[in-house]
Amino acid sequence: MKSVFSERQLLHTPSKELSDGEMRAAVELPARAEYVRDRILEVGLGDIIEPSAFGRAPLERVHTKDYLDFMEGFRALHEAAGRTGEAFPFIWPTHGLRSDVTPRHVDGLLGRYSFDAGTPIGPMSWEAAKISADTALTAAKMIAQGAPVAFALCRPPGHHAMTDRFGGYCFLNNAAIAAQYLRDEGAERVTILDVDYHHGNGTQQIFYERGDVQFLSLHADPADEFPYFLGYADEVGEGEGEGCNFNWPMPLGTDWSGWSASLDEACARAASFGTDTLVVSLGLDPFENDPISKFKLVSDDFIRVGERIAKLGLPTLFVMEGGYAIDALGVNCVNVLSGFEGA
Amino acid sequence: MKSVFSERQLLHTPSKELSDGEMRAAVELPARAEYVRDRILEVGLGDIIEPSAFGRAPLERVHTKDYLDFMEGFRALHEAAGRTGEAFPFIWPTHGLRSDVTPRHVDGLLGRYSFDAGTPIGPMSWEAAKISADTALTAAKMIAQGAPVAFALCRPPGHHAMTDRFGGYCFLNNAAIAAQYLRDEGAERVTILDVDYHHGNGTQQIFYERGDVQFLSLHADPADEFPYFLGYADEVGEGEGEGCNFNWPMPLGTDWSGWSASLDEACARAASFGTDTLVVSLGLDPFENDPISKFKLVSDDFIRVGERIAKLGLPTLFVMEGGYAIDALGVNCVNVLSGFEGA
Repeated sequence: MKSVFSERQLLHTPSKELSDGEMRAAVELPARAEYVRDRILEVGLGDIIEPSAFGRAPLERVHTKDYLDFMEGFRALHEAAGRTGEAFPFIWPTHGLRSDVTPRHVDGLLGRYSFDAGTPIGPMSWEAAKISADTALTAAKMIAQGAPVAFALCRPPGHHAMTDRFGGYCFLNNAAIAAQYLRDEGAERVTILDVDYHHGNGTQQIFYERGDVQFLSLHADPADEFPYFLGYADEVGEGEGEGCNFNWPMPLGTDWSGWSASLDEACARAASFGTDTLVVSLGLDPFENDPISKFKLVSDDFIRVGERIAKLGLPTLFVMEGGYAIDALGVNCVNVLSGFEGA
Repeated sequence: MKSVFSERQLLHTPSKELSDGEMRAAVELPARAEYVRDRILEVGLGDIIEPSAFGRAPLERVHTKDYLDFMEGFRALHEAAGRTGEAFPFIWPTHGLRSDVTPRHVDGLLGRYSFDAGTPIGPMSWEAAKISADTALTAAKMIAQGAPVAFALCRPPGHHAMTDRFGGYCFLNNAAIAAQYLRDEGAERVTILDVDYHHGNGTQQIFYERGDVQFLSLHADPADEFPYFLGYADEVGEGEGEGCNFNWPMPLGTDWSGWSASLDEACARAASFGTDTLVVSLGLDPFENDPISKFKLVSDDFIRVGERIAKLGLPTLFVMEGGYAIDALGVNCVNVLSGFEGA
């Protein structure tokens, strides 16, 4: 299968993040993408294509214009405030504070358009995020044009990004942007299957009231894990989207037996929805040695993930999300893709 | 006038805070309270009394039980998670995420019960916060028992703390706890006049639907300043509280002429409300040299603040809030109190 990747996605180079209660070294590092790319080359999975530029229009189908304006203009605001280096928001409009005001001040705007302090904005972060979205769109275009499968080696990841908020290492929701693009290009019923260890709160929020894009997510119970405030089993969609959102929160320590049972259920949902195009938010952090996760999948299990998804027999776009065991990330990611192709 | 203070309030010793987009040295330091205490002694303002212990009941009149339980138990949770040192939340339930879930995980709980990353919880922070509330309550008791005026040298401050969220250097809303205590002890109509440079979002939120406690706040326009998401002029109270909440957001650079015009309007509101007891949230950060603020009051202006408030002729409880120009803080704070007494 063909992959899409640009080295410009490596321009986002976070050094720190606020997590686990303190300021720590960042884990969403450029090397993540390099390990995956190198493994693709090593096993000869297929060509790696440079992404095309799709511009702002497909981003506006998923994110609000004011959010995109903020992100476009942020570094200028930051520098006008006399600041250099990475920027962190530090106050948020939680419940009890207003959601209907947009402050003028750069710190107010940072809080308005985010939900965590783990996602610093550096000088080239937005550039890398846009290329990452273009990577997803370029791979989606291959599917729209008839390819049975394609892999978007996206980095920074996307599934935590909401319509108008960054967070969880994510700025643009690559999978959501790709899914919407596929709809706009003729797909009628798209399912996004999110196998990242963390709930894809952004993707869920974006499509929560939509009946044409189903969201299925396998992840650690949010009572125990980031993002904590979305991803519970009782979230089933609203309005036209009711019955098109399903979460499989699982306990810490879940291994293949429990995880694959959820995967089987999710695949059954994908089939019964009448899905014509599948987008997989491919997080590799269910891996047993992932440094920030607590599931117990082993490297060979990822081959079986690909095989199981292939059995759906659907045009399938894989979009990379999280996964932080850097040296194993390439192997595990390509195991899913090889498993899919070999099935 | 008598003041209330305990050196145990100095046990909260934050070293860092996330503000202005990066991790910086903390500014809400123990020395703040020491400068004020020393100035009280220097000018002979009056006796400084140790606070009495009021226990948890008066805190529960203002804060939720689950919030107090969280704060009481936080350090044990933190240590059980293998952590030491200061704790910072890093993800928040902003709009678009759920407000009706309480995660099990310590980081989820930290986010659930806060709204910023500028308020680290250290080993003795909760102890200091409780003593700070006791300081406000002890001074409030003097008022309830007939004193015309009293000063609660509270630190950490309180006015940003909401019913169930810490932030803005605040854990317990000292002024709100004192105002509620005064109501419970017989005051019929209490006005809280907040002159801190930053909007008292916590106090407003706590009494927003109450008709018996009026909240009046003079502060920097939240479009330009912390807390950014509350403190606008169109927030006038709801339900029984409609018409009992007034904000005077003012532009950066406001000096005495503009500021005192707002103070006059606020004092007129205090009078027309039929206030029988006044609580002043006394922030000293409208001062021209305050390191994190941008108003232009000079030290002598603070004497006039005290004189103007005294003209209301009401039993008055002063509760210290912010103010960070540490060497001038004592002078400016005691200028208000001396101005009140000399009027």
